[in-house]
Amino acid sequence: MARNDDRRRALADAGLSVLADEGARGLTHRAVDRAAGVPLGTASNYFPSRTALIEGLVGRIGERLAPSEKFLREHEGLPPSRELFSQYLRDIARRLLGDRQVAIALFELRLESTRRPEIAELLGRWRREGFAADVAFNARAGLPGGADEIALFHYAMDGLMLDQLTDPLMPEEPIDDILDALVDRLLPR
Amino acid sequence: MARNDDRRRALADAGLSVLADEGARGLTHRAVDRAAGVPLGTASNYFPSRTALIEGLVGRIGERLAPSEKFLREHEGLPPSRELFSQYLRDIARRLLGDRQVAIALFELRLESTRRPEIAELLGRWRREGFAADVAFNARAGLPGGADEIALFHYAMDGLMLDQLTDPLMPEEPIDDILDALVDRLLPR
Repeated sequence: MARNDDRRRALADAGLSVLADEGARGLTHRAVDRAAGVPLGTASNYFPSRTALIEGLVGRIGERLAPSEKFLREHEGLPPSRELFSQYLRDIARRLLGDRQVAIALFELRLESTRRPEIAELLGRWRREGFAADVAFNARAGLPGGADEIALFHYAMDGLMLDQLTDPLMPEEPIDDILDALVDRLLPR
Repeated sequence: MARNDDRRRALADAGLSVLADEGARGLTHRAVDRAAGVPLGTASNYFPSRTALIEGLVGRIGERLAPSEKFLREHEGLPPSRELFSQYLRDIARRLLGDRQVAIALFELRLESTRRPEIAELLGRWRREGFAADVAFNARAGLPGGADEIALFHYAMDGLMLDQLTDPLMPEEPIDDILDALVDRLLPR
């Protein structure tokens, strides 16, 4: 069972590398098998359809982007403040930009959503669950910002990540300064 | 000459439809010829390399996303205000969401930038020129917001457009309300 989980994870990682390197159109079971260095047919055994494959990739994206236990422990229960919100936001940016492959793969799936309703539904549900979890986390931690503000942060962060992954509009501007400006402007006073 | 321009434009439009429908990986001269319904080899005559082709597409994106003469005439010289800024922002959103194919094609090229330095350079230059033009326009019109704020609007708008093109985080929220919230928060007071 543990071995199956390892194999499943390795296949999903291979799928994410295919997505990042070749785009959504290159994502086939065969390409995943090749990227994972496993016999042809393996990916199909674990993920019987393309939608099942993408569902597996989305789950793996969630695992790879999860905050570290250490970070969570160090910040849990701290007195809520704009500064604490800002630290959480910086951690999100660090995780996304620190795993470039996952960040690009996720954008690829967002675009694939424009073409395939079943992917749009799957990814839309995942994004809304993450969004609801963010809103609940913020409320529980006593941090400023409700659903409306968190949505604005989602939009701004998506655009900023895309900007930073390629050729930034403001190459000289440190990302932490941009994040601070967003916190300064978007959080209610 | 005029005929050549028409043909060039038709080929670029075909290229944008290939990008939107099949992703960057599907963008070949052959696919453009097929989508345009012209003899094989035509796209190569107009755009001798893949980079030249993408340069042509970027130019055509600029044309298709340009504000209408009518809109510009109606708003030129109006007294500057946050409300006027908001009207310009709504017009940008209308243009992007009103030409879904171009909006998606542009995101495809942004992702292609992560893989191909020559595309990153070309698109990065185009984006920074547009950004500089936005900042200059704002200053000339006496509108609130300098380079830092306009950059924040670029990030937030990119993320919001991607959100609206697929399965939105807040499906019930009218986009104009989201845009108003951005203007309310991001513009200096």
